[in-house]
Amino acid sequence: MHIRCKQDLLLNSINTVLKACSTKTTMPILECILLKAHNNQVTLVGYNLELGIESTIEAEVLEEGSIALESKIFSEIIRKMPNQTVDISTSSNHMTNIICEKSKFSIAGQLGDEFPDLPKVEQMNKYTISQVVFKDMIRQTIFSVAQEESRPILTGEMIQLKDNSFRMVTVDGYRISYRNIPISTENQECEVVVPGRTLNEISKILSSDEHDEMDIYFEDKHVLFDLGESKVVSNLLEGEFLKYEQVFSSDYETKVKVDRKEFLMSIERAALISREGKKNPIKIEIDGDNMIITSRAELGTALEEVAIELEGNNLSIAFNPKYLIDALKSIDDDEVSITFISSLTPCIIHPIEGDHYKYLILPIRLNA
Amino acid sequence: MHIRCKQDLLLNSINTVLKACSTKTTMPILECILLKAHNNQVTLVGYNLELGIESTIEAEVLEEGSIALESKIFSEIIRKMPNQTVDISTSSNHMTNIICEKSKFSIAGQLGDEFPDLPKVEQMNKYTISQVVFKDMIRQTIFSVAQEESRPILTGEMIQLKDNSFRMVTVDGYRISYRNIPISTENQECEVVVPGRTLNEISKILSSDEHDEMDIYFEDKHVLFDLGESKVVSNLLEGEFLKYEQVFSSDYETKVKVDRKEFLMSIERAALISREGKKNPIKIEIDGDNMIITSRAELGTALEEVAIELEGNNLSIAFNPKYLIDALKSIDDDEVSITFISSLTPCIIHPIEGDHYKYLILPIRLNA
Repeated sequence: MHIRCKQDLLLNSINTVLKACSTKTTMPILECILLKAHNNQVTLVGYNLELGIESTIEAEVLEEGSIALESKIFSEIIRKMPNQTVDISTSSNHMTNIICEKSKFSIAGQLGDEFPDLPKVEQMNKYTISQVVFKDMIRQTIFSVAQEESRPILTGEMIQLKDNSFRMVTVDGYRISYRNIPISTENQECEVVVPGRTLNEISKILSSDEHDEMDIYFEDKHVLFDLGESKVVSNLLEGEFLKYEQVFSSDYETKVKVDRKEFLMSIERAALISREGKKNPIKIEIDGDNMIITSRAELGTALEEVAIELEGNNLSIAFNPKYLIDALKSIDDDEVSITFISSLTPCIIHPIEGDHYKYLILPIRLNA
Repeated sequence: MHIRCKQDLLLNSINTVLKACSTKTTMPILECILLKAHNNQVTLVGYNLELGIESTIEAEVLEEGSIALESKIFSEIIRKMPNQTVDISTSSNHMTNIICEKSKFSIAGQLGDEFPDLPKVEQMNKYTISQVVFKDMIRQTIFSVAQEESRPILTGEMIQLKDNSFRMVTVDGYRISYRNIPISTENQECEVVVPGRTLNEISKILSSDEHDEMDIYFEDKHVLFDLGESKVVSNLLEGEFLKYEQVFSSDYETKVKVDRKEFLMSIERAALISREGKKNPIKIEIDGDNMIITSRAELGTALEEVAIELEGNNLSIAFNPKYLIDALKSIDDDEVSITFISSLTPCIIHPIEGDHYKYLILPIRLNA
């Protein structure tokens, strides 16, 4: 293989595929970036057997072929090169020469043919979405994927096409985060569970340009995100996801309308005290036009007052403040509506108008 | 004690004194910030018995007195408060109420009288310097204070007033970093060794405004840095510092003039390979108009070429690349001059004109 390409293009591509390279593995080839030169293009590939990323750039191909280079050293070398033409050529024993202006590196590579193939995904069941919107939906739900591996399916995020809406849902045993957007075209209904790690990595390479779209292709075992210059393939998680729809009740005994930022800041402050006491809950008293938030630990106490509009009964309830903070931080609206049934049942945070998000949070039972 | 002050002023002051608060100590009072209210001012103090910082702000003092508050929780509470008036008052048992708008905290404090006094420094032997210049001089020398405590004196930085110049010097056994500025006024000669930690912390609170000056007061056991609104007192290190002046030889057999940035980038790239090989040196061959930098490890090889202007003999020498990188990064000049005597003696990096800095670096003996 012998190619010449621009340093900045190459570096950009490396940074993209690097997100799928293994760092700790018993298969050293998975720590590599594969370079494949063909026609006037070079395709870079990173693949950790769960997530694979491919990125293609223009290059002058003097000799076709492929080589796998250890991702850490290869990325660092290219990062430190001047922004000029980089010349990469393989010689005997997979030694690879990397030359840019007056710098010349020789590093040991591995046979490109030993790099595992990415799963082929049939480009059948396709859904097109704005990259910015998808990135936002990930941000607004990813925080409540389960961390423990005791129920592996919950370490993923459900993506669902159903009833003319595109939905993303995460569940971690204490809370459910739900986002949805209406879709105009008639899509085939489908439901997949994508590993949280995959969505975390994808969200780092999604464009911030409102005009950029992406295609998502759904299959039984894999999903393909086609961003144009780069393609991301991921395994899906197998198993039964929580039947979340049944859990979101529309009944309530208490409903409050509150300024999101004011409520968030109050909880963050009260949490300073509760945090010191190791998972001490914060207590919320809804009383007429006021919500009183209190926390107590050996260290001291906090008391916060927030103005609300109340519909229904007064209520006293307690929460892990982190769960409220995560949800309230992810919302962009100025005001939110929160519904409660009792101090022992979950609350649900809704938009004032519409149903494009729902955050369900379980309370903590107070020993009092 | 009962005071009222602006949240932003208070927070700024907290952030300053926090740098001197202990985080791990057997004396819990040293983890506190002391607040002393007197006249229409509040003085905040952090002190870890080596370094003390005092910062004074305007406040409405409703009742004079003092209290010591655990620095972590106190700083976090004030940081999260809205930018309004904060009301702090002590009640029985040193419980302290912190109120801002609709937030009310009660935290346990400790008796202010139990907080140790900062050392008194006689304001006699004074030197005035621009804060920006002092900050630069710290940045350009601090990286070579010794890390190990085997010779405690070398974990500090020598500040010396001598021969009408203000000098700062660090030595770590493999290199010497030296900066000096001429001083116009006749100052009394003096020489102190300030702990590296002290200078690290001070440099974070120094102003970036070119017009801001500071006074340094030297004493036998302590040094006082008076920045106006804040004062920093530090212990000095005791012992004999290296007689660095004898080590800087003005003889040379080889002298090269080189573009600093180009040389730096070449070494940084070559170091990518040498780093992998665990402290493998980089080798420099000075040959006519060229300097060839090479490194070699199991992983591969790097070869860099840099144009130079040579005076004297060709030379082959090897270094720990980190030491060259640290020195070259700290210099602001476009070009530098480097002098060598042999491959077994230190090189010295100088400015092309003047003598405001000198970096001496020991070579590594090559097994060849």
